[in-house]
Amino acid sequence: MIDIALLGCGGSMPIPNRYLSSVLMNYNGEKILVDCGEGTQVSMKILKWGFKTIGTICISHGHGDHIIGLPGLLATIGNSGRTEPMTIIGPEGITHIINGLRTVVPYLPYKINIIENPDGKLNIIKDMTIEVLKLDHSSPCIGYSFYIKRKPKFEPERAIKNEIPKNLWKILQDGETAIYNDKVYEPNMVLGKKRKGIKISYITDTRPIDAIPDFIRESDLFICEGSYGDKEDLEKAIKNKHMTFEEAAKLALRGNVKELLLTHFNPSMSEPELYKYNAESVFPNSIIGYDRLTRTLKFSEDD
Amino acid sequence: MIDIALLGCGGSMPIPNRYLSSVLMNYNGEKILVDCGEGTQVSMKILKWGFKTIGTICISHGHGDHIIGLPGLLATIGNSGRTEPMTIIGPEGITHIINGLRTVVPYLPYKINIIENPDGKLNIIKDMTIEVLKLDHSSPCIGYSFYIKRKPKFEPERAIKNEIPKNLWKILQDGETAIYNDKVYEPNMVLGKKRKGIKISYITDTRPIDAIPDFIRESDLFICEGSYGDKEDLEKAIKNKHMTFEEAAKLALRGNVKELLLTHFNPSMSEPELYKYNAESVFPNSIIGYDRLTRTLKFSEDD
Repeated sequence: MIDIALLGCGGSMPIPNRYLSSVLMNYNGEKILVDCGEGTQVSMKILKWGFKTIGTICISHGHGDHIIGLPGLLATIGNSGRTEPMTIIGPEGITHIINGLRTVVPYLPYKINIIENPDGKLNIIKDMTIEVLKLDHSSPCIGYSFYIKRKPKFEPERAIKNEIPKNLWKILQDGETAIYNDKVYEPNMVLGKKRKGIKISYITDTRPIDAIPDFIRESDLFICEGSYGDKEDLEKAIKNKHMTFEEAAKLALRGNVKELLLTHFNPSMSEPELYKYNAESVFPNSIIGYDRLTRTLKFSEDD
Repeated sequence: MIDIALLGCGGSMPIPNRYLSSVLMNYNGEKILVDCGEGTQVSMKILKWGFKTIGTICISHGHGDHIIGLPGLLATIGNSGRTEPMTIIGPEGITHIINGLRTVVPYLPYKINIIENPDGKLNIIKDMTIEVLKLDHSSPCIGYSFYIKRKPKFEPERAIKNEIPKNLWKILQDGETAIYNDKVYEPNMVLGKKRKGIKISYITDTRPIDAIPDFIRESDLFICEGSYGDKEDLEKAIKNKHMTFEEAAKLALRGNVKELLLTHFNPSMSEPELYKYNAESVFPNSIIGYDRLTRTLKFSEDD
């Protein structure tokens, strides 16, 4: 189970009731923040999910509307009593930007490890894999996917049939091989078929490149920028390296995701709901984000 | 006449309905911003005073709660169409901090001139003098005073009596000496006695040092930090180099100001109004600030 909150759903500049890009995830008490625009702290204060347990911050890119809230938040996390190290992930150049922003908070009571421009899968959080994808924006920018692994079902009737000593059940259930009385016991002797985990993907800011559908494939929740709702703003989207609602919905369809959550609305669009049909007509399960929208995702009951 | 808006009245971290330190002044269509904490842009958007005409930004010090809103605001001012240069004033070290924050907004359509650690009076804005005072905080910090000069009254009956040619009236009225037909005409031939201008002073963050009363003397509006309302928090105020309401009120009294506007409330103080009496009992004309409180100050009608 994972809780997700859209802390801010604006792009470019913060406006009343629409802070800038940020998503907070709470998984097993550990928090992961994705982007940190201006106002992030205020939404967090309203939500009351706490500051101290933010251990990982994923930044899409170094534009102000995705990162200006960071120095203030780092200070608040410090004031909340955190002393454990924190990991910040970001695209090429992120170290320089973080060091720049940290001129206003040079002293923090915890260490920050920066992972710049990662390659391949990251296993920072237990049972969760973080993957990144290079996007097509006006500065180096990466998308993220978060995958929570699910163990295959433990089948006690097979454990009994295979005569597994009871003291090994937990080891095998956890996917480890056990050797006991010179005999080797494999996890597949007690475990059922593979089960799908939970996948969340986050794509902003970018044009809709071909690598996205595979990257977001089968996501339970696909959080995607929709800077412009009106189809007629396509030229602006192309010029500013952003997407329209329709383009985001086409990606959701191609990626066969369960739900599309649109965010990162241009401030010129005062009521994004008015353009919802441009997403729904392509991908019915589209939602228009708003500040502090929350979702809880659970493992599927089918398995 | 000058309009003043308290954009944010919080210290440390932004909370709902209380953004961080910032004051906006509008004088003859030119805007001066004093400090720029997180949320400044949002308050400005609500106020609708506009972004483009901000030509001077005064920063008290480089702590996040006074400057984190700056890079986002600079971008928004750029997007509003400003191309005229901007001046930013701040204490020792401010250039390094501004350059750090500008890593997220490296390209702006206007030039920024930084005046670091100024000495003496600054005449950047027509008819206005800006003065600074070194304060006592945990990092280099300066207070500001803004003085709008008022011309002495023009007395046409004296101009007639002194036989001043009419084409020289405006020149003398503006305080310039004129030579006409080999005769010298001085401003004092048409002008009455000196008249008091408008003075606004801004003091945060600091302990109440002895230099403050003279610096703020006779201010029409004295905007001052009151991090702690409760007298019992004096120890915290001393430790964190801040002030209590009572200490701020004592400065207002010693400086013989007209009105004290308290701001920069610690987030632990959810209702600063509850402690108003601690200021009023020392200095009756004390006001508790709130986000987007506005004031219009005019030249005195007595003169």
